[in-house]
Amino acid sequence: MSAPRIGILTISDRASLGVYEDASGPAIEAALREYLATACEYERRVIPDEIPDIVAALNEFVAKDCCLVVTTGGTGPAPRDVTPEAIEQVCRKLLPGFGEQMRRASLEKGVPTAILSRQTAGIAGKSLVITLPGKPASIRVCLDAVFPAIPYCIDLIGGPRLDGNPAAVQVFRPK
Amino acid sequence: MSAPRIGILTISDRASLGVYEDASGPAIEAALREYLATACEYERRVIPDEIPDIVAALNEFVAKDCCLVVTTGGTGPAPRDVTPEAIEQVCRKLLPGFGEQMRRASLEKGVPTAILSRQTAGIAGKSLVITLPGKPASIRVCLDAVFPAIPYCIDLIGGPRLDGNPAAVQVFRPK
Amino acid sequence: MSAPRIGILTISDRASLGVYEDASGPAIEAALREYLATACEYERRVIPDEIPDIVAALNEFVAKDCCLVVTTGGTGPAPRDVTPEAIEQVCRKLLPGFGEQMRRASLEKGVPTAILSRQTAGIAGKSLVITLPGKPASIRVCLDAVFPAIPYCIDLIGGPRLDGNPAAVQVFRPK
Repeated sequence: MSAPRIGILTISDRASLGVYEDASGPAIEAALREYLATACEYERRVIPDEIPDIVAALNEFVAKDCCLVVTTGGTGPAPRDVTPEAIEQVCRKLLPGFGEQMRRASLEKGVPTAILSRQTAGIAGKSLVITLPGKPASIRVCLDAVFPAIPYCIDLIGGPRLDGNPAAVQVFRPK
Repeated sequence: MSAPRIGILTISDRASLGVYEDASGPAIEAALREYLATACEYERRVIPDEIPDIVAALNEFVAKDCCLVVTTGGTGPAPRDVTPEAIEQVCRKLLPGFGEQMRRASLEKGVPTAILSRQTAGIAGKSLVITLPGKPASIRVCLDAVFPAIPYCIDLIGGPRLDGNPAAVQVFRPK
Repeated sequence: MSAPRIGILTISDRASLGVYEDASGPAIEAALREYLATACEYERRVIPDEIPDIVAALNEFVAKDCCLVVTTGGTGPAPRDVTPEAIEQVCRKLLPGFGEQMRRASLEKGVPTAILSRQTAGIAGKSLVITLPGKPASIRVCLDAVFPAIPYCIDLIGGPRLDGNPAAVQVFRPK
């Protein structure tokens, strides 16, 4: 049996053009490696804020049987922010509780502009797709807020079992 | 004048096949009988997790002038969970505050996987339709979180007056 | 450079017929004049609860380069409440965090029926559109809950810089 696969998608015009180096994708991989006791195979990509590119990259990760796909960037109200629109095209089910919980976590950290975030999550095939913010400083706040529910969600959609690293994070599976 | 009608719809492949007995529908009826001082007529049905069956059952309850229709089951991320999709087909208005409030109530009870729930509510004709979770243990948590707003909502959509039982629950009507 | 423009739209059958005088529109203008240090040009309109009228009025405010459009009324579950439906027709992006935050603020003020509100916000052209409740007593509760994020949102969509009046409200711009 091969290791579970996780896709990480950095959605950023400037990072994809090389204007700056992508810091968010590596930060997400580092966090997931720390939180997961299960050894996984990680694949990262960097693409511009274009719906067709995002849709294609998401579908590719789904086709490769990634049980988890995490995006970063493109969830704000600015004209170039189109990540949620791409997610809606790819996912057959949306999970509004993820966006609620991530916005609440940022609000509780004293960031009133968290309400501007259109972060969401959804199911595409057997993949759980989650959108994280683009700013590295906000990534852990949002990921920490939803991580405990991720492994059980992947159980429910028929994916591989992921175990958390109890030293870093408390994974929850209802009895 | 006839008694207000309330429909209770258990959405579960296994309960509808008789693999196990439906415990959630009776639990909802028991809770509503306890919470409502107004005598109502209750009707319960058990159907499989199929969108056409759910849509047909909801429409039947609406056609019978049920002022309240409560579903249980089918709101998670699993492939067979399709209750929200059926609700969206039947309801002309969705009320996202119900889902937010029910997820928050479960989170506050220490259930981080509450964010996986796609629970929602909506208006179909003169019926308020609310989705509760499938697990009997979670039903009261979610129902308690939204019940105080239910009678006033039914007022607003032109339904019968429902009075709460103050010993059990505090119904709220803004002045 | 001309002053930033703000549109205020009272959506009410009775106010538009003159059955009662519109108190909500002037209350919103008074609050915004107090909260904003930047001098703005305000325009108010009163229209009935009809989707085509709301859509036309919103589009007119957007065409006039209003950076902010605030509506009041029509966000409940009653049959005549259609403001969110009109917003969805006009806005290319919805910002669910605004509705979540306004409902939460009302809930925390002890109003359990806040979950019945379908309040939302969205982006149309270069305008941020926000729906407030119809009742004057609830307007400040909801506006206060989201106001700190409004100027930064307008920055992000390419609008004019709005500064808050620190004596009245704390505007937030992430660094």
